[in-house]
Amino acid sequence: MEAAARVIARRGVRGLRVEELAAEAGVSTALIYYHFKDRTGILRQTLEFINDRAERYTTERDPDAPPLSPREDLDHTLLLELQDSAEVRENSTAWGELRASAVFDDALREDLARATLVWVQEIAELLGRVRPMTPATALASAAERLTALLEGLSMRWLSGSLPLAHARALMAEAIEVEVARLGR
Amino acid sequence: MEAAARVIARRGVRGLRVEELAAEAGVSTALIYYHFKDRTGILRQTLEFINDRAERYTTERDPDAPPLSPREDLDHTLLLELQDSAEVRENSTAWGELRASAVFDDALREDLARATLVWVQEIAELLGRVRPMTPATALASAAERLTALLEGLSMRWLSGSLPLAHARALMAEAIEVEVARLGR
Repeated sequence: MEAAARVIARRGVRGLRVEELAAEAGVSTALIYYHFKDRTGILRQTLEFINDRAERYTTERDPDAPPLSPREDLDHTLLLELQDSAEVRENSTAWGELRASAVFDDALREDLARATLVWVQEIAELLGRVRPMTPATALASAAERLTALLEGLSMRWLSGSLPLAHARALMAEAIEVEVARLGR
Repeated sequence: MEAAARVIARRGVRGLRVEELAAEAGVSTALIYYHFKDRTGILRQTLEFINDRAERYTTERDPDAPPLSPREDLDHTLLLELQDSAEVRENSTAWGELRASAVFDDALREDLARATLVWVQEIAELLGRVRPMTPATALASAAERLTALLEGLSMRWLSGSLPLAHARALMAEAIEVEVARLGR
């Protein structure tokens, strides 16, 4: 799975060749097909893998650090998706590729819609801890906007239209704006 | 150029074959190469073409219709990018493909950054007419967020993760939120 995420982040979904993936993972192409059945199987499993990994790097904390306030937790979770580490860059590139491919490839759509929903719900839950008196629909809308904005900013960053520090500042301000609105 | 936008919206940038483009346009591949020099030339010109076309369909109005207020103009310009017409779907698909390709293709980055900037400035100007007392940097940040959100929502719509009507509702609410904030 790590090899698949690496190859997709390097060449894109459309540039993914099973031979290259096998070489990257140090296994035979036969084993790849045995495990994943086909190309769609590889993409689906990669989607799951990068989501689990994002879940880990956005929530992992030093066990001795003081607990985060709900608001810090929200900022932390969203802004960790905009950092210049190899892992985040690779994850975001692969996610953007799966998103862009699903425009043309129906087989990916359902898994991607489900992964998007899980992410939106996670952010809605964090928003709900910051603003406990807010109706669920308002939390969901704010979470949909924040996550869609994050996808848009990530793509601008990765495609060279937006410096990372500025993307982070825009995202931080967006969180501020949405949280302030939920509090009114 | 229309043929290029159609082929990219049908197969993606990575699926663009000069032979198919020539057939779609009803000309020879030699003529395509003569005009555009190479693949990058085709992509650059297509980027310019879809931007001009978006400029047209987001600003074109019945000359007998009453003039729009600044706020209506802003809503109109942004929400017309989320409509289920063949032209908008094709334009947004091609834009998303050029954005996604620029992650891997350095040759596209400069043109795409410039096109993004022009779009951000156009929206900042509309925001400035709605809220004339706002400093330029605040207008620019709001415009960057609104356009990046629009890109994120478009990709969710086109990839089947978000119904169009809901994408429009989220976008309308985001405009509301940003405009309210600039007014404070």
